[in-house]
Amino acid sequence: MNLTNIASEVAGIYSGLQQEICLSLSESDGKAKFTKNHWEKEIGHGLTCDLRDGKILEKGGVNFSFVQGDFTPHMEQLLGEKAVSYAVTGISSIMHPVNPFVPIIHMNVRFFVLDNGTCWFGGGIDLTPHYIDVPEATNFHKKLKNICDAFDADYYQEFKQKADDYFYLPHRGETRGIGGIFFDRLKPDASVGFEQLLAFTTSIARSYPQLYGQIIRDKYQHPYDEKNKGWQELRRGRYAEFNLAYDRGTKFGFESNGNAESILISLPPTAAWEYKHSPGPDSPEQQTMQLLRKEIDWINL
Amino acid sequence: MNLTNIASEVAGIYSGLQQEICLSLSESDGKAKFTKNHWEKEIGHGLTCDLRDGKILEKGGVNFSFVQGDFTPHMEQLLGEKAVSYAVTGISSIMHPVNPFVPIIHMNVRFFVLDNGTCWFGGGIDLTPHYIDVPEATNFHKKLKNICDAFDADYYQEFKQKADDYFYLPHRGETRGIGGIFFDRLKPDASVGFEQLLAFTTSIARSYPQLYGQIIRDKYQHPYDEKNKGWQELRRGRYAEFNLAYDRGTKFGFESNGNAESILISLPPTAAWEYKHSPGPDSPEQQTMQLLRKEIDWINL
Repeated sequence: MNLTNIASEVAGIYSGLQQEICLSLSESDGKAKFTKNHWEKEIGHGLTCDLRDGKILEKGGVNFSFVQGDFTPHMEQLLGEKAVSYAVTGISSIMHPVNPFVPIIHMNVRFFVLDNGTCWFGGGIDLTPHYIDVPEATNFHKKLKNICDAFDADYYQEFKQKADDYFYLPHRGETRGIGGIFFDRLKPDASVGFEQLLAFTTSIARSYPQLYGQIIRDKYQHPYDEKNKGWQELRRGRYAEFNLAYDRGTKFGFESNGNAESILISLPPTAAWEYKHSPGPDSPEQQTMQLLRKEIDWINL
Repeated sequence: MNLTNIASEVAGIYSGLQQEICLSLSESDGKAKFTKNHWEKEIGHGLTCDLRDGKILEKGGVNFSFVQGDFTPHMEQLLGEKAVSYAVTGISSIMHPVNPFVPIIHMNVRFFVLDNGTCWFGGGIDLTPHYIDVPEATNFHKKLKNICDAFDADYYQEFKQKADDYFYLPHRGETRGIGGIFFDRLKPDASVGFEQLLAFTTSIARSYPQLYGQIIRDKYQHPYDEKNKGWQELRRGRYAEFNLAYDRGTKFGFESNGNAESILISLPPTAAWEYKHSPGPDSPEQQTMQLLRKEIDWINL
């Protein structure tokens, strides 16, 4: 298998999807325009589309990257694969909204290929509401299940579980939000071909701005006050904790000497920390805290 | 060696020092009072002294803890020691000031002992100015050198180098601030006894509020504007990056199932991130960026 050819093919498709996503998110915001930042380093190149100060979206990014390099002993250990070189291409996006009642969203799809011919896809979508709204969460998970079901009846359950496990802050005993789907090391085999897996990831990437667009329309006019903004800042702090202390994409990016500004575009515009903050009993904030748990069957809640 | 006895002896001294530090910092602030939070978990206990909304100090903490447990295979690997159980006691403190011209400060001293008799001290003090002021930095390093010189003529050079290496954000290619001194695995041996090393760490802990008190008095009335506050928020973001992604104390705390609120009391009250922020040429912010480098000989600058 020609590593560069196959990775370039996927990269071409992902790169096109990045532009579709930016266009769609710009339309949902109504004001925000993305600024395009090409970058090139020894290990590869990318296009970081940076959004700031939108009407609805305060800060966000849609990243595309294509990276190639030596497969280091550390990567061998991390991934349990033996190879000499690798290529990886992907899109990742995070949006931090102005209104605390609009959730933070994250989407990522990626394709990893080794010179020995092994390749796999990874990715997912997950939602981090500052205030959890159960019908919104149910609807979000239903839509993810529909996307999954079109490809494999087992995907949703499996990938929903993986999202619960992955988007988790062990030091807090909290999930990051209401989860979604997360998958990694999805390899083509006798039962599922490369083309089908590629189609699955493009389906996720295409659904992403649609899904979020609907949530935005439902919520962006929700009234909020200073107390809600204060809570949003604390939840943004938790988001930063996850991304800096646990996120594998951040770690891999740092270790592979990636583009720090592009990797950290995921961080919130602002954040706050307060020692031992405790929301009042039966407050909406407290209700959200009680739902930051794994294993919630959101579809049938 | 009785592990519990020796650790308890050190813990008693550190615990007293914690109270001295709180008293002195309260006096320097003029308004702030520390709130005492005792905690007890399976692995140990501690006292977290929490400061918020002072006149000069916006958020900070002085932590004391005493933790005992099984020496895990992971710790063996991390520390290159073989043992069955360990005890560790220490004080750590971080202060985030209101005024962007007052630096963030951090101090830590700790004593680690294994059931096989091996023990060592670690710790240090370092300064993170939002705006680097060279005479202040020179003075700070001179004072640290004086503390070190009273114990060993080689300590300052060695520990200054270690601080440069440790308080470093590789993904940014920036030091956290102007450094200071940092040491770890300082073991009693034929040339230096346990009592002397303990005295070295108590000397550091005692100097800490004095050093910072002087800096506060010099700077807390420095005028500042919105632009300075905005810059402070971005630098606080960097501080959060270091503490969440690299700080060994945070990692060790998370891994040993420590008290998350106490560990993360080090985080700033607020923080901000902006994609590709770039200070104007020759601005004070740019001048600070140019000094966030290792190997600066602050004393002779």
